[in-house]
Amino acid sequence: MARTSFLGDLLTSLTKTRWPLGGGGDRRSIEDLCRALLSTAGEVSGLRLSATILARYKQMNTADRLAFFKFLNDKLDVDAGRVAGLAQAYSEDPSTENFTALVRAAEPRRQELFRRLHEMPAATAELVSARVDLLELLKEHPELKRTDLDLVHLLRSWFNRGFLRIEQIDWHTSATLLEKIVAYEAVHEIHDWDDLRRRLHPTDRRCFAFFHPAMPDEPLIFVEVALTKGVPNSIQGLLAEDREALAAEEANTAVFYSISNCQKGLKGISFGNFLIKQVVAELSQELPGLNTFVTLSPIPGLNRWLETLDGDKRAERLLAGKASDTEAMALAARYLLEARRPDGFPRDPVARFHLGNGAIVHDVHAGADTSANGMAQSSGLMVNYLYDLGQTEKNHEAFTADKKIASSRGVRAKSRAEKAAPAAPATPLLAPAEADAK
Amino acid sequence: MARTSFLGDLLTSLTKTRWPLGGGGDRRSIEDLCRALLSTAGEVSGLRLSATILARYKQMNTADRLAFFKFLNDKLDVDAGRVAGLAQAYSEDPSTENFTALVRAAEPRRQELFRRLHEMPAATAELVSARVDLLELLKEHPELKRTDLDLVHLLRSWFNRGFLRIEQIDWHTSATLLEKIVAYEAVHEIHDWDDLRRRLHPTDRRCFAFFHPAMPDEPLIFVEVALTKGVPNSIQGLLAEDREALAAEEANTAVFYSISNCQKGLKGISFGNFLIKQVVAELSQELPGLNTFVTLSPIPGLNRWLETLDGDKRAERLLAGKASDTEAMALAARYLLEARRPDGFPRDPVARFHLGNGAIVHDVHAGADTSANGMAQSSGLMVNYLYDLGQTEKNHEAFTADKKIASSRGVRAKSRAEKAAPAAPATPLLAPAEADAK
Amino acid sequence: MARTSFLGDLLTSLTKTRWPLGGGGDRRSIEDLCRALLSTAGEVSGLRLSATILARYKQMNTADRLAFFKFLNDKLDVDAGRVAGLAQAYSEDPSTENFTALVRAAEPRRQELFRRLHEMPAATAELVSARVDLLELLKEHPELKRTDLDLVHLLRSWFNRGFLRIEQIDWHTSATLLEKIVAYEAVHEIHDWDDLRRRLHPTDRRCFAFFHPAMPDEPLIFVEVALTKGVPNSIQGLLAEDREALAAEEANTAVFYSISNCQKGLKGISFGNFLIKQVVAELSQELPGLNTFVTLSPIPGLNRWLETLDGDKRAERLLAGKASDTEAMALAARYLLEARRPDGFPRDPVARFHLGNGAIVHDVHAGADTSANGMAQSSGLMVNYLYDLGQTEKNHEAFTADKKIASSRGVRAKSRAEKAAPAAPATPLLAPAEADAK
Amino acid sequence: MARTSFLGDLLTSLTKTRWPLGGGGDRRSIEDLCRALLSTAGEVSGLRLSATILARYKQMNTADRLAFFKFLNDKLDVDAGRVAGLAQAYSEDPSTENFTALVRAAEPRRQELFRRLHEMPAATAELVSARVDLLELLKEHPELKRTDLDLVHLLRSWFNRGFLRIEQIDWHTSATLLEKIVAYEAVHEIHDWDDLRRRLHPTDRRCFAFFHPAMPDEPLIFVEVALTKGVPNSIQGLLAEDREALAAEEANTAVFYSISNCQKGLKGISFGNFLIKQVVAELSQELPGLNTFVTLSPIPGLNRWLETLDGDKRAERLLAGKASDTEAMALAARYLLEARRPDGFPRDPVARFHLGNGAIVHDVHAGADTSANGMAQSSGLMVNYLYDLGQTEKNHEAFTADKKIASSRGVRAKSRAEKAAPAAPATPLLAPAEADAK
Repeated sequence: MARTSFLGDLLTSLTKTRWPLGGGGDRRSIEDLCRALLSTAGEVSGLRLSATILARYKQMNTADRLAFFKFLNDKLDVDAGRVAGLAQAYSEDPSTENFTALVRAAEPRRQELFRRLHEMPAATAELVSARVDLLELLKEHPELKRTDLDLVHLLRSWFNRGFLRIEQIDWHTSATLLEKIVAYEAVHEIHDWDDLRRRLHPTDRRCFAFFHPAMPDEPLIFVEVALTKGVPNSIQGLLAEDREALAAEEANTAVFYSISNCQKGLKGISFGNFLIKQVVAELSQELPGLNTFVTLSPIPGLNRWLETLDGDKRAERLLAGKASDTEAMALAARYLLEARRPDGFPRDPVARFHLGNGAIVHDVHAGADTSANGMAQSSGLMVNYLYDLGQTEKNHEAFTADKKIASSRGVRAKSRAEKAAPAAPATPLLAPAEADAK
Repeated sequence: MARTSFLGDLLTSLTKTRWPLGGGGDRRSIEDLCRALLSTAGEVSGLRLSATILARYKQMNTADRLAFFKFLNDKLDVDAGRVAGLAQAYSEDPSTENFTALVRAAEPRRQELFRRLHEMPAATAELVSARVDLLELLKEHPELKRTDLDLVHLLRSWFNRGFLRIEQIDWHTSATLLEKIVAYEAVHEIHDWDDLRRRLHPTDRRCFAFFHPAMPDEPLIFVEVALTKGVPNSIQGLLAEDREALAAEEANTAVFYSISNCQKGLKGISFGNFLIKQVVAELSQELPGLNTFVTLSPIPGLNRWLETLDGDKRAERLLAGKASDTEAMALAARYLLEARRPDGFPRDPVARFHLGNGAIVHDVHAGADTSANGMAQSSGLMVNYLYDLGQTEKNHEAFTADKKIASSRGVRAKSRAEKAAPAAPATPLLAPAEADAK
Repeated sequence: MARTSFLGDLLTSLTKTRWPLGGGGDRRSIEDLCRALLSTAGEVSGLRLSATILARYKQMNTADRLAFFKFLNDKLDVDAGRVAGLAQAYSEDPSTENFTALVRAAEPRRQELFRRLHEMPAATAELVSARVDLLELLKEHPELKRTDLDLVHLLRSWFNRGFLRIEQIDWHTSATLLEKIVAYEAVHEIHDWDDLRRRLHPTDRRCFAFFHPAMPDEPLIFVEVALTKGVPNSIQGLLAEDREALAAEEANTAVFYSISNCQKGLKGISFGNFLIKQVVAELSQELPGLNTFVTLSPIPGLNRWLETLDGDKRAERLLAGKASDTEAMALAARYLLEARRPDGFPRDPVARFHLGNGAIVHDVHAGADTSANGMAQSSGLMVNYLYDLGQTEKNHEAFTADKKIASSRGVRAKSRAEKAAPAAPATPLLAPAEADAK
Repeated sequence: MARTSFLGDLLTSLTKTRWPLGGGGDRRSIEDLCRALLSTAGEVSGLRLSATILARYKQMNTADRLAFFKFLNDKLDVDAGRVAGLAQAYSEDPSTENFTALVRAAEPRRQELFRRLHEMPAATAELVSARVDLLELLKEHPELKRTDLDLVHLLRSWFNRGFLRIEQIDWHTSATLLEKIVAYEAVHEIHDWDDLRRRLHPTDRRCFAFFHPAMPDEPLIFVEVALTKGVPNSIQGLLAEDREALAAEEANTAVFYSISNCQKGLKGISFGNFLIKQVVAELSQELPGLNTFVTLSPIPGLNRWLETLDGDKRAERLLAGKASDTEAMALAARYLLEARRPDGFPRDPVARFHLGNGAIVHDVHAGADTSANGMAQSSGLMVNYLYDLGQTEKNHEAFTADKKIASSRGVRAKSRAEKAAPAAPATPLLAPAEADAK
């Protein structure tokens, strides 16, 4: 029987005799508490200090948090002069002592601080939450980036992929967790419990999430899957309230129609690639009748790109809602296959994600997302990316090394149709305005 | 439902199309594989390389492993010259770019290699196991210490205390796990399943272990506890086959009579202090009648110390098995309270552990361990260390800062009795021969 | 690992080779199938027949079901003449053979049929569901009562209290189960998931249900509990959307404000008494600060009784919504303490339940349920029944044996106040019209 | 979370205030307690009485238990005279009232007593245990058979097959349960934990058991399975300590080599047939490579039958250990195919079990069980029964209806070889001495 609460109970019993958590009784400044934590050798006194610091942090307002992160950034930084000297010494005498001294000095002291704070039982979630604050502060205070780099470095280690477990989310899942699925869904909003039930409960729906053992009630990322006959061409059809569910065994296609990252504080630590591939492996095993794994994805950058095509009649027609489906799909195909950032990678962020995972651009559909958002960002167009696990590694390598965009014959034909048409003037395929965007 | 095996299945399905795990098909050297792993950006190709490297490592003989660790130690070290330059640059311009460059360069590249290997699902246990090999090699090749420092640095982060969970081991535990308790018991050997049953099943016995989520079938450390009336004075009495079990509610004392670290590969990463304190907290909650928490511990260094007391008649009598109990206990008390290493900390390693945790020397007993090993190492004497959670932090600090050994009045009286006696010549309380032992 | 599905899988594999379940292939009549099931000795052929009969039953319309139950009632009845002869034989020679023959003959054959059908893995729920049909048919066909008695006899054995387990229902419960709580709530309707959350999630709310191992997804009965300071006097206050939740440790009172039986097919098999008492025991253990356990219950028969009080001015005022609170409560107290059925037990069915469990009438409140239903049935009045586990057995016995209604001094005073008042004419306290109601 | 202990806690809290369990305080005789239990309507007073009766029963010696069962047998029997009258009345007027009166009177009152006792949470195991006593007493007091029939009737209902769950027993099973496997193994003794490990842990071994939800720590029956290539011909080979384990996927045959009923108190309630068939279904699903399911069974009645063959030279040679393997197998085949009881069913009890399940006699082997017991009962011969799920129902029906013994061509050939030989005199194939054995 697991008894994870005991560490917390213990801490309470060990510390309450001295002063309450939250540091009401400990009059030292947060800076002094951090320095004390870095210098103590006692495990229990360390835990007590960590608890005090984390409790104090939670009560801080934005200004205090900024001051705290500036302290970490400036006062708990590396001592570069000292590092230079120790590096010199090590290069002259590569002894263990010189190595140890160099390595210790070269690690910013805030890293050790984060590590010690992290020994508190519930600290994982609290440090992830603190990073949300830090990311917010970074917008105005880019110099804090150093501290963020250190925190990400540690989070990446703690959220090591080997630690994650995948779980199926369905109608047997607890309400506590289902509430979070509703809250975290980032692509196609879940309006209420009835809507949620339509996403999870029918025989032709699946949902999978990654969890970390130290945050068992918090999904890191989840993907919603529809099982279909054939590749679907609109999100409205897929999510229609009155549709008939398919028996899972009759499906030949699994459609990843929504992938949501749940933890802002883990920005930059990617789980999506692996989640998709594990779900492909899992579904293949459970349902041998499945032979096609595709997404039904938004094209978030399409309209903005169309706007850059000054004087392109078809682009204007599409933006005006007057293009034919054929024209629309041809433009979308061209955008996905050819519109690039200055660094040579695709303009479209969703395309970069799936192509980087080794998927291919499989098909485009007009009138596929007629919601307000779908019309505004992509004139109602959507795209299928196809995952063929036997090809993803090869595709990934060609994409990463040579920026090669893998695509189906059909999509290429649609794109060529567009180019073959006479109307288009010379247009910049690279959007200079987005050159420094990531 | 957790589906941890899928990552493994996925890997198999992703990689088997190219070449078998174990690298039979990949003709590159292990060094090239490591360099490839460090340079790939692909998650899946990274996993495949990791799997190949770990499989190859497992098949290596000792000479190959030595060569592998030397490669890590020498070729994947820090480039000290480069670090010196980057540190200089950062001290002149503390920009994020300079910081990033410095921090990346100052981390030995083998750390990133270990981190990438660790992303494989089962890699945690394999890296712990690799460290067992490394520790063995270190004896003859102390220069590999650098690599060991890096590996420990990472293991400490992965075995972060906040990730551990405590579990009770009892007769409802699986045979798989119980087998490991038998194998890992390091203090008082468990002879067979009947013996194990006597340790776990009676109403007055408890056992608790720490586990890490990535190694769910492997205990990290466990402690065996006896519930008693009064503080026991011998291990024979405690473990007698024919004793009558006490109802747990009738006990007033919990005795920690055996603590075993299970993972050699985690040497230097200590879990014992916290395990003991959590168990104290847990048992206090379950059994409010408990008011005393003590160990019944060996005194492994006693006889060796007695041998250093040249010409001390009582020491000679004790070594010869002819001392009275009073004499024996007086010598043991004196050893525990006064015999120091050159660094001022106690000579006895078990004493250093418990005193470092904030326990006190509570009592000593003659004839307490009459096994061959007990007679050989400590002439049959044992010691109780007492844990009073309200005092441990204060004791710990006094011990750490001032090398102060906390003890009971009774033990001090026994020790004084010894000193008051006339027979002892001047003897070295510090054992020079052990000066560099840890 | 439990593998309850295997029996089903096995059945499928054993039977599909012959003919499909549902009996499409088996042309025999349902009567012949039942006779075949009663005569087969083969376990597997028995299971196949059971599966066929149950599947056939599910597809029947009401007329067919009536015919089926008539068949059970008439053709699978006891052969009374034969029983008379065998009883005679046994009274003359009480041999084992005579005993066996008598006992077998005296059991209606449909009991053995039900038992054999019940050996199918999922049959428990199906037989409970068949009894729902039977209860409906009984209204028009009271002669089927014999069959119902036999079915209840068996259900009582299968739903033996020792088999039930209690579970807490909270926000960690699965959506599948929570949906059923919404559907089965019979006292105060749960409007949507937000409403459900307010019943289950706050720190001062609890819900417990009984389950049977053969119907793990179906609650048998559940009770909703509010933790309060002091005894509450209205359901509106208790369920107010904007109320502040209390920390559970601060509560001194547990209020059972809704008890719902979930399975119509188990009518007549009572679980409520024990559920309440187990919850009292459980909450007492979890929250030692609780010292009062009461219900906040409807008074469903109040208005109908008031209507029988021809010419009673206060009753008329209360029915007209013009009574003072004092008048209203006095009438309610009098109703609860004095209004009786012809058999001498209380008129009010909810009162009969709680008094039969050994609770006492503790207090009455005016304006306590101002919902349309609350006004219609009891002019807005509600009652607290108090459970004092030390007294329930004694109260139960006095109630059962002597029809004594235990009550608090306060309620008796309110009731006396009513009687002391001059206005009331002689009124019938026993309602003849309800004489044969149970 | 299940909280099965609460009912017990509740009971304690409800009853301890009056008198201690065990009935030290209740001076009534066990007979009076039983009568009180039958007459009480109170659920809690009923439970208290049940607890007292069961506690009192446990403390009884054999004489007291005999008296108790005699009381049940004689005083709580059916009143046959009354039944005769009520049957007469019902045959004249089949009203519900007459039906109810008849059915109630025709059920021995001890049945209701057992049912009420059974409402205690832990009573299931206690009643099973009481039946062990009753079976023992029956040997000397056959008149108690009536009470046994009633108890079996109820146990059969409570141990309804739909309630059972199958679980795999392996090295991840708790020591508590494994101990019971060792204790209950009835066919091939398990000598110690090492032996147990060899039965459960290798890749080519499986063990499955049935459990009842009210006795979760008590297996009802278990079967041990070996996965092999080809049908094995000796138990020594199958259980050899030094054999090499086979990868499960490489096996084509599953061998049921030991089936043990665990609960003497459930004698006469058979679980073996279904356990075997569920395990066949389960293993077929897990390991599609399996195409043969056989037993390796003892032939317990062989030697006793041989002894009845007066003057048969081959029988004498076999009993003297001097027969050739061919002779031995021919005799065993003839015994299995032809030796019958007076009722026409096979002499051999194990043969009756497997043939009754629809298996066939597949092969016989000489030198297959050379243990002392194997030599003593069957001169070292063993038999394979083969389960072909597509045929078992047909075989079962032919066996039950026509006493037809299904067998393989090979076994029939061996048997014919024996008969063709000249030496045998006319021998009785039916053993009169066993005529009334079951």
